[in-house]
Formats: sequence, C-alpha cells, structure tokens
Amino acid sequence: MKILITGGGGFLGFRLARALLARGTLGGREISSMTLLDGAFPPGVENLKTATAVTGDVSDAATVATVCTPGTDAVFHLAAVVSGAAEADFELGMRVNLKGMELLLAQLRRVAAGGARPARLVFTSSIAAFGGDLPAVLDDATIANPQTSYGAQKVIGEVLVSDYTRKGFLDGRSLRLPTVVVRAGKPNAAASSFASAIIREPLHGVVSECPVGPETGIWLLSPGRVVDALIHAWELPPQAWGAQRWLNLPGITATVARMVEALRRVAGDAVARRVVYKADARIQAIVKTWPVNFRTPRALAMGFRPDADVESVIRAYVADENIKI
Amino acid sequence: MKILITGGGGFLGFRLARALLARGTLGGREISSMTLLDGAFPPGVENLKTATAVTGDVSDAATVATVCTPGTDAVFHLAAVVSGAAEADFELGMRVNLKGMELLLAQLRRVAAGGARPARLVFTSSIAAFGGDLPAVLDDATIANPQTSYGAQKVIGEVLVSDYTRKGFLDGRSLRLPTVVVRAGKPNAAASSFASAIIREPLHGVVSECPVGPETGIWLLSPGRVVDALIHAWELPPQAWGAQRWLNLPGITATVARMVEALRRVAGDAVARRVVYKADARIQAIVKTWPVNFRTPRALAMGFRPDADVESVIRAYVADENIKI
Repeated sequence: MKILITGGGGFLGFRLARALLARGTLGGREISSMTLLDGAFPPGVENLKTATAVTGDVSDAATVATVCTPGTDAVFHLAAVVSGAAEADFELGMRVNLKGMELLLAQLRRVAAGGARPARLVFTSSIAAFGGDLPAVLDDATIANPQTSYGAQKVIGEVLVSDYTRKGFLDGRSLRLPTVVVRAGKPNAAASSFASAIIREPLHGVVSECPVGPETGIWLLSPGRVVDALIHAWELPPQAWGAQRWLNLPGITATVARMVEALRRVAGDAVARRVVYKADARIQAIVKTWPVNFRTPRALAMGFRPDADVESVIRAYVADENIKI
Repeated sequence: MKILITGGGGFLGFRLARALLARGTLGGREISSMTLLDGAFPPGVENLKTATAVTGDVSDAATVATVCTPGTDAVFHLAAVVSGAAEADFELGMRVNLKGMELLLAQLRRVAAGGARPARLVFTSSIAAFGGDLPAVLDDATIANPQTSYGAQKVIGEVLVSDYTRKGFLDGRSLRLPTVVVRAGKPNAAASSFASAIIREPLHGVVSECPVGPETGIWLLSPGRVVDALIHAWELPPQAWGAQRWLNLPGITATVARMVEALRRVAGDAVARRVVYKADARIQAIVKTWPVNFRTPRALAMGFRPDADVESVIRAYVADENIKI
C-alpha cells in the first residue's frame, strides 16, 4: 500500500499521515510507503517511519509526475490555497486549486493507462461549494453555487473527480468539509481562521480578536473527525458511493457565542474573556456566504460521524495539545 | 458593438451570426464588427457584412488572443466538441471544452485588466449537466450531476463563468440548452443527433435509423428559439441574473413516437415511414442519462420562451429550408 498525501505538511495532511502510520494499514493492507507533498513541513516529519517528505508544488507537472507513480494505491488530495488567499490572489488560487487538480488527475490517468490499477483518491472539498440564496437547512439535494473563488475551484475539482471516476481512470471520492475547529498552530489566511483562533488562542493565554459577531453561525467538525472521515471515505467500497462521488460531511452547528460559552465551561471565565470582538468587513463578507445548518442523511447512512458537541471538540483539542486547565 | 462568436461556423453559431446581422443591433447598439471563430465555415460566410471568419481552435492561446481583443463587447461562446465525441475522445473534449473555456476566460480577464470595459458573455451549457438519480420533473433547484464528460465540462464552464463574473472580470450568463431540434445539415457525433435526424432526413427523402426506442423522451427546443434565447440572455441586465449566472432554458417534452406522429401530421405518412428503429447501445447509454421533464419558472419569469408544440418545431424547419410538402 503506497500512499500519497498532497498538502501532507499542512495541519490536516500531517495529522492524517500520523494517523495512518499509527494504524499501519489502509483498507486492510499494510502501508509500505507514504509520500507527503507540500511546500513546507512541520518539525518531526523526518521521524515518520516509511514516509518521504517532498518539498514542491502540486501545480508543477514535473513534481506531480515524481510523486504520483505507478503503484500509488491511495491519494489524499488536500493541497490547496485557502479561501481568503484564493480570494485575494485569484491567479494563485486558480493555479494551485484548479491547475494543480487537473495535473494530478491527468497524471493518475496516465499511470492507469500504463496498466497500473487505478488509484483510489479522496479529495477535500468544502461547504464553500454553497452560496447565494440558501435554504434555512441545506441537505444532499441543495445545489452548489459558490460565491468565492475557493468554493468555485473546489466544486470544479468535485466534477472532475466524478468524471475521471466514471471513466475508470481512478476511483475518487470528494468530501465537503465543514469548518475545521480547533486547528492547531497559528492563525492563517483562511477566512474561517477565527473559528479555531477564538478557542485556541485563549487556551494558550493569548487574546483573540474575533472578526465576526457573536451571533455568527458555524458548521464545524473537529480535526480528529475529519481525519477519521478521510480514512473512512477511502475505505468505503465503490458501490457505497455509486454515481455521486461527493457528499456533505456531517458536522454540528454552533454560534460564536455558543463556542465562547463552551470554552468558559471547559476552561473557565478568565480564558473565555480573552475573546474580543473586532469587526472585519472582508472576513464577514466571505463568512456570511457560508451555510450554517445542514441535514446529512447520506453521509450518516454511509457511516460518517459528527462530534458530540462543542465542549467535546474543545476537550479534544486540550487533550491533543496537552494543555493544563 | 464588437461581437465574437466562438463556434461561429457551426449550425447554431452561424445562425446566430445571421440573426444578429439581420437585426443590426445588440442591446440597442449598432453592430460594428463581428468575428466568427471556428475550424470550418459553411458556404456564404464571405457574404456576411461586417463579419470576419477566423479559422482556428479555441484551445489555442494565440488564436484566442487574436479574436478576443480590447473593445470586444459581446462574446457568444458556442465552440465545443459535442457529447458523443467528447465521450469517445476524452482528451479532445478536455482540451476544447475545458481548456478552451479556461483560455477564453483568462483572455477576457486580461483584456479587462488592461482597462477595457469587461465583456458580456453568453455560454451555451447543456442539460447534460444533469444525471444520476433524477427526480421525475427537474426544476431550478435540481443539482448538477453530469454522467458524461461533455456534461462535466459544461458544468465546469458554468462555475468558471459565475466566478469570473462575481470577480468583475466579465459579465457572464450560461444557458443550459435542451436538445436542439431540428438541426439542419448532416447527422453529427452528438449523441442527440438522432433527435433532429428523424425529422430532417425523412423530409429530405432519406431513411433515418433511430438508435433509441419510440418511447424515448426528449426535452427539446428549436434552433430559432435557441438563437432568440442567446440574444435575450445577452440583453438582460445584470440584475436580472443576480448571483446565479446559469439557468435551465424552457423547452417541450416529446417522445420519439410523438415526434414521428407530428412528422406524419405535417408531412404525411410516406415521410413518417422513413423513420426506422435500429438500436445503438452506445447512444442509448448516453441518452438515457438525460432528463426529459422540466419546470423552468426562473427562465419563464426572465422572459425566455419554449416552442408551442412539436408540429410548430417541424413547420419552422420546413419553412427555414424551403421544403415543399
């Protein structure tokens, strides 16, 4: 079992790599090698047994050909320019999020055309697929209508993954991820960065400026559940997916106020008071296009699971990071 | 008013060119020049006043830069590899239908970045956007789920047009065309070719082999109505479109049997008997993924109109072609 993780140096990609190596198997087969492709890697990557870190760009054809070779059984395609950055730099987003996807799929097709068994691919799409006039509660029949370039690029990726799958060039599955909370590390250029920062920064003794109001709703999933979902999505048999190769992952709905209240219950009043509100019109304009309430019967029937509640999301972060509270 | 029509040598593109030149105006402004881009042109193109025919390929960047220059006010993007051909030759479809679209949009963005007023573009998408588990009647809220590469490429084009529009690089509108009936000319590689052939060939004294059964349903629109719709789509103000830049055009639903019966009523029994059934599994596999019944309230509210009935569709063709019956 040879695995490629694009974006393998990123928060989710690196966590996925560690989770897979801790299991030792994927789809019941032993993991013999793993390639992580990214522009940079966190400390400790050199200690991952059987993993090779390749520094490079998914929008470079030669790099993609290097990491995606015959015998690659599993691809997790997480590499992407995040939402805020893709909106601020249109060409960058198009190059990485669209051209990168096109190159990766074309390379997988080329490898399969050479006689190799088609790879099975999991692609991280996003609820940024939705926008415009939204119903109060979205479900599996809600049309995609992205109102950010990031969302548009993700939807296009889903359509390509579906068509390459239908043609037999690969066996692809796309997951529309909720906002991932709590991300470890630093705030980033994602418009959703605040959703983790308002939990993470106060727990580390730092004041967090929240760019959206307390009434702002978020559809969220913890990183642990996302990693579980990526692996589960890969391990499901093709017939579980059928002709529709994308789905909305389950999540939970919370307002910023509710998250701060949960933080207070988990970590105390002094910690919760480190969240201060400082409006940012640019972030608000993006976030208000995102959906908040979902029904996800298809994903639930396929065995995907949301977190129990916001407190458990926060407690999972506290445990992951060995934070004393 | 400078106009570019990609696919301007094709059946619809050339008909659109003639219709626009007969009007003399678009959006109330005089048409000063028109460029038609295509791989080949019908006889008579040299007689079109103010029109320049450019022989070339929309997937060639230099060609696109040549035809799409500052001052181009209107673009009608019809150039495409048809459904059957895009399914048979995946790389050809991806190159023309996807890369061609990407090049055209990037060029329009470049021109606008140079200070020109962003062009207004109409893109011909298709009901091949739909597939998989379809409701009995589709409507404006039905999700896209293409089951052909042609359909996938069209959906991607719509998403790109919407995002380029949202970013202000152009003012785009995508129309999901029903099957166009009756196309003039020869049968082509479109899987839907039979839908016109079973009317057209018998009217010209030729036997037509229908690859699908008489019970097969078709969602159709006449070429005259399609041309009207392309012009109307262009002339509608941006606020009529809002944040959703694609729509399902109105049409009428007919079975093959109903079409043959209408042909009998218009042209007589001897003509109708020239339709013979000869099953083609490849064509059937594509056609059965296409939707047949629609409600199109959005398009109707925006002023788009279907044909009255199948007989009037046939009579329009008879009149266009000066056929004696």
